Amino acid sequence: MPKLDPDRLFPSEPRRRDIARDLFAAIEGRPILSPHGHCDPSWFSENAAFPDPAQLFVVPDHYIFRMLVSQGGGLADLGISRRDGGPVETDPRAIWRRFAAHYYLFRGTPTRLWIDHALEHVFGVDDPLGPDTADAIYDHVAACLERPEFRPRALFDRFNIELLATTDSALDTLDHHDRIGDAGLKGRVIPTYRPDAALDPEIEGFAENIAELGRITDCDTASWAGYLEAHRRRRAYFRKRGATATDHGHPSARTEAFDTATAERLFHTCLSGQATAEQADAFRGQMLTEMARMSVEDGMTMQLHVGSFRNHSGPVMRDFGRDKGFDIPIRTEFVHALKPMLDEVGQEPGLEIILFTLDETTFSRELAPLAGAYPALRLGPPWWFFDSPEGIMRYRQLTGETAGIYNTAGFNDDTRAFCSIPARHDVSRRVDCSWLAGLVADGRIGLDEAHEMAGELTTDLVKKAYKI
Amino acid sequence: MPKLDPDRLFPSEPRRRDIARDLFAAIEGRPILSPHGHCDPSWFSENAAFPDPAQLFVVPDHYIFRMLVSQGGGLADLGISRRDGGPVETDPRAIWRRFAAHYYLFRGTPTRLWIDHALEHVFGVDDPLGPDTADAIYDHVAACLERPEFRPRALFDRFNIELLATTDSALDTLDHHDRIGDAGLKGRVIPTYRPDAALDPEIEGFAENIAELGRITDCDTASWAGYLEAHRRRRAYFRKRGATATDHGHPSARTEAFDTATAERLFHTCLSGQATAEQADAFRGQMLTEMARMSVEDGMTMQLHVGSFRNHSGPVMRDFGRDKGFDIPIRTEFVHALKPMLDEVGQEPGLEIILFTLDETTFSRELAPLAGAYPALRLGPPWWFFDSPEGIMRYRQLTGETAGIYNTAGFNDDTRAFCSIPARHDVSRRVDCSWLAGLVADGRIGLDEAHEMAGELTTDLVKKAYKI
Amino acid sequence: MPKLDPDRLFPSEPRRRDIARDLFAAIEGRPILSPHGHCDPSWFSENAAFPDPAQLFVVPDHYIFRMLVSQGGGLADLGISRRDGGPVETDPRAIWRRFAAHYYLFRGTPTRLWIDHALEHVFGVDDPLGPDTADAIYDHVAACLERPEFRPRALFDRFNIELLATTDSALDTLDHHDRIGDAGLKGRVIPTYRPDAALDPEIEGFAENIAELGRITDCDTASWAGYLEAHRRRRAYFRKRGATATDHGHPSARTEAFDTATAERLFHTCLSGQATAEQADAFRGQMLTEMARMSVEDGMTMQLHVGSFRNHSGPVMRDFGRDKGFDIPIRTEFVHALKPMLDEVGQEPGLEIILFTLDETTFSRELAPLAGAYPALRLGPPWWFFDSPEGIMRYRQLTGETAGIYNTAGFNDDTRAFCSIPARHDVSRRVDCSWLAGLVADGRIGLDEAHEMAGELTTDLVKKAYKI
Repeated sequence: MPKLDPDRLFPSEPRRRDIARDLFAAIEGRPILSPHGHCDPSWFSENAAFPDPAQLFVVPDHYIFRMLVSQGGGLADLGISRRDGGPVETDPRAIWRRFAAHYYLFRGTPTRLWIDHALEHVFGVDDPLGPDTADAIYDHVAACLERPEFRPRALFDRFNIELLATTDSALDTLDHHDRIGDAGLKGRVIPTYRPDAALDPEIEGFAENIAELGRITDCDTASWAGYLEAHRRRRAYFRKRGATATDHGHPSARTEAFDTATAERLFHTCLSGQATAEQADAFRGQMLTEMARMSVEDGMTMQLHVGSFRNHSGPVMRDFGRDKGFDIPIRTEFVHALKPMLDEVGQEPGLEIILFTLDETTFSRELAPLAGAYPALRLGPPWWFFDSPEGIMRYRQLTGETAGIYNTAGFNDDTRAFCSIPARHDVSRRVDCSWLAGLVADGRIGLDEAHEMAGELTTDLVKKAYKI
Repeated sequence: MPKLDPDRLFPSEPRRRDIARDLFAAIEGRPILSPHGHCDPSWFSENAAFPDPAQLFVVPDHYIFRMLVSQGGGLADLGISRRDGGPVETDPRAIWRRFAAHYYLFRGTPTRLWIDHALEHVFGVDDPLGPDTADAIYDHVAACLERPEFRPRALFDRFNIELLATTDSALDTLDHHDRIGDAGLKGRVIPTYRPDAALDPEIEGFAENIAELGRITDCDTASWAGYLEAHRRRRAYFRKRGATATDHGHPSARTEAFDTATAERLFHTCLSGQATAEQADAFRGQMLTEMARMSVEDGMTMQLHVGSFRNHSGPVMRDFGRDKGFDIPIRTEFVHALKPMLDEVGQEPGLEIILFTLDETTFSRELAPLAGAYPALRLGPPWWFFDSPEGIMRYRQLTGETAGIYNTAGFNDDTRAFCSIPARHDVSRRVDCSWLAGLVADGRIGLDEAHEMAGELTTDLVKKAYKI
Repeated sequence: MPKLDPDRLFPSEPRRRDIARDLFAAIEGRPILSPHGHCDPSWFSENAAFPDPAQLFVVPDHYIFRMLVSQGGGLADLGISRRDGGPVETDPRAIWRRFAAHYYLFRGTPTRLWIDHALEHVFGVDDPLGPDTADAIYDHVAACLERPEFRPRALFDRFNIELLATTDSALDTLDHHDRIGDAGLKGRVIPTYRPDAALDPEIEGFAENIAELGRITDCDTASWAGYLEAHRRRRAYFRKRGATATDHGHPSARTEAFDTATAERLFHTCLSGQATAEQADAFRGQMLTEMARMSVEDGMTMQLHVGSFRNHSGPVMRDFGRDKGFDIPIRTEFVHALKPMLDEVGQEPGLEIILFTLDETTFSRELAPLAGAYPALRLGPPWWFFDSPEGIMRYRQLTGETAGIYNTAGFNDDTRAFCSIPARHDVSRRVDCSWLAGLVADGRIGLDEAHEMAGELTTDLVKKAYKI
């Protein structure tokens, strides 16, 4: 008996369920477009075997270790490196056992769906994961990982990925991307221009990064004009390697549109390391507008991921460093924040700015009304904690009536957990079909329209939003 | 086959659906009460034919043109006048074709329900609107508009409107309302006192408007006392013509209760044109309390519509002016903001202050708790972007448990799209009945109670809230 | 025919309903754990009869009188004492009749469910409450109250309460608790340490209360060290009488972690009565961290109830005093606010800090992400206005995907309405089972898991969270 219910995430009322089944059957087989995520390009350029089940599933997945930590598990016991080089668990089987023993904690969470789906569909595991099955499943998955058909390239093809975008520092050489061309993948792996390290004055090494950006672009990044030109050249470098989008992870959605002299002064203040928090924030805001202007020139789609309080726990940051599950969403404002940029570029018909939020209250109040008016704006799919059955359904219910679906951008899996990619797209497609089934059953749209919309949500809108 | 499902917007689970059908059948035929909206009174005093389908459906409807603009359509191509008098589309058929070609954008939005309903129920159109049917439907509707039974008065009677309130500047002569008396309508058309232009220091022409208010009321509006007296007299003028309510569209819910000397000083500062943004805001806050005091005296219901960032796009405002689809909701606070006014008048048993919000987070957190305690407060129905199937259902779910229904005000269609009025009331009645059906199916209320409540929501609460 | 539907609050779709029934049947009979509430311990130490139906149901229940007031009823007419000693209604039957005449106002509210449940299950009333049945029901309930089996102790046992925690001032002698030991109850009644009166500089009598705290603990509370020691000793006093938790009702979630010198200075400023609002707020914030540190030492669970604007109506506060139904929720921020305390104690594995909010927007955005990472944090159940069918369902949907259920704390009835305790637990258990039934029907968890989770939500998580 399969662990996964074939009707999972469909409405249980029979009429709605039948419509959802019908819609899903028609799009289930479409290839995966993954226009934003955090896979490591070296997986595909090197094609090395994934080391072991713990390294594949547990150690890199902040959803998993944050939950175990919340119930008293230690990061070190899960194999997370300490900054002081102190001892951490190195036995992957011990890590896996801890995970399995606490797998019940994930009941009702999307992680549970993703892991179950990956174990069953990728590795053919039939038994439910738990303390009693931990060793057997570990052995089974470990054995799989040694076989060629579980190498990254083989999985990429098996997952039916047509396109996968990685997220890459502006300073990255993109060597791995260059080499992926020879990998013989059925689909494409493309980079995304993420310039935060050479754009956000509060990121460590800002000045050094800007100097490095100057070296690799042959621009004088000590000047404002040269700095902007360096970004232009680097964007072109990324575009040549297939990139169609930039990505910006900022604390807030603040944008600015200062005159050149003010922007230039602000740049020099930030470069000097003397910027106040306010000045750093203003500079980030100015740079979003600059990036948008460059997008008008070069056609790159612009992604804005805002509203996370990163590394909230002082002790965890001190002992284990960044990205250890202590990033917490904060209240976010878009209406005032985006106005300076939108007054500059908001009416540009060819521009695509995709907005992501961790504050669901902004969906119906701010984001759907903005995206439902400004030609340049689209709503990104529910992000991070909200990439879940309830989260996706709320998103559609909160945005669909004001922005429709044609001002949205399809789905992003946004993951570094490679084996969860099919699972995440499966969840998204099912919930979207369930939502559409509700519209049909409500008499709000026809079934033929729902079929068109399901196709748009699954692949067509992604292609439009990311120009792929 | 009718395009509109007779069970539309009812639950699909059979037991709930049957209850909803039963409730709806009992109230479906009730007359329409439209106590707040933006119809043009000259429609009924003049009874001229509506010019053409584009002028009737597209050009005045910001829901429609904002969506088309969001997907790259130009306002000028939709016949929206430019402030510089530059060329815009003048062919109504061309405008209609653009609308029809993009009608798919509205899938899942309430606009789609409203337009489909109006085309089928008002004009007898059976075919779905789209590029292939655009011309035929245009011709059919245009032909209808030439016939007497599609003149405004005939439609008013056919729509079974018992009462329709327009929204009118304090400076309006109400000539059209005076003449409607002879129109022989089955129902009534009454004005609403909307004094923003002579109350909000940030509206262009504030000082001139106050001078004009003085002239038409024979008051010395250069003095604080005279200014207040002018409002009193003008309210009486409106009341004589049937008005039972005032309406106030403010950026925020701020109220103040300054002493007379402070209020007077603030008035003179505002009148001088020297007021800061903060002073203007404070003055608006003071005036809400003054208006509430006058409502205690004269019995007029007071409506408060707050929380829209008007004319958000600089370029659109510059080229096309106000009200062009770029009004965006903002986060709104009521608890601190209303306290000064409520400490003055909140316990008045005869006073009716109806609160409208564009920030749905305030429904369960602030508005339902306030309206569930203060005698003077009622919750207005979901407004603008939230006058929709999901919006209405969320509103009931978020307010019903704390405020009940008896602290709400029934439905407002709030529209200038005359032909959508029956459709909007139809949606509201259906969703309310679906919500009530859920309460019955949940065992939370009895069916007999649900019938009473459906009647309250449809007409009785409107009459109480607006004293009609 | 019973008034209460045996399937109330279950899904009506048959498959989901059957799962919910099955889950509920297995936990329905579990004893009640009430780890936070406001019952009067003297009820159980004295075991006096409740005086009359109005005193039992109406006069102490702010849910009831706020609703009647919102529709024009006067507090005095409901028997609420005036601060000036002026006349109020003293006839309990007259109060009861007013309540019954307006009972329809509660349609769709949880109060309606609670009252119906109490009348039927506690008093065996079959008829619906209303103006026609008011007298008969009054007479019936009044007659019951004279019988021994309706005395507090008998009801306590009949309600199958295993544990009930009261909420007690730090200055309380706990005499009643001492005497309850001899009451022969089947379950236990324990106190909770609520130190607000000797901790919040803005509560009247702060300095006197601190002096009194010094006297009863034999500490020099004029010094910062002595003040902290007094709390330590008083907590120990409470613990000896069974207390396992503290409770803190603050306007905001602000915490601070000042150095000792700064904290000491702030303490003296507050003690002097010269503190600004900002200093008082900072002191409350510091004291939350101090209380958390003491909890690390002595193991007491810490409850944080924040975000109510207390006594919002000036006139009601002036005429009737505190807690008269005019406490209104306000927007609340947790992410920045809790960081100082969490940096100090957030990683403590044995510490239990339970967070309650009246701002539902924080559930998915802030609280679930925080509780799903920090070992020391748990989410309290939906509080006050949100302890309702829709409120509980939203809570599970908004928190379950990020925090799971194992970072939550089970249910609190939080009531002073003794007879509503079984009803409130009934509602909570039913809605939790309905939510779990949805997860099973969705294919998100197995039925066996749902059974385990239902048990956790009903009693097991309460025991873990409150260490009972």
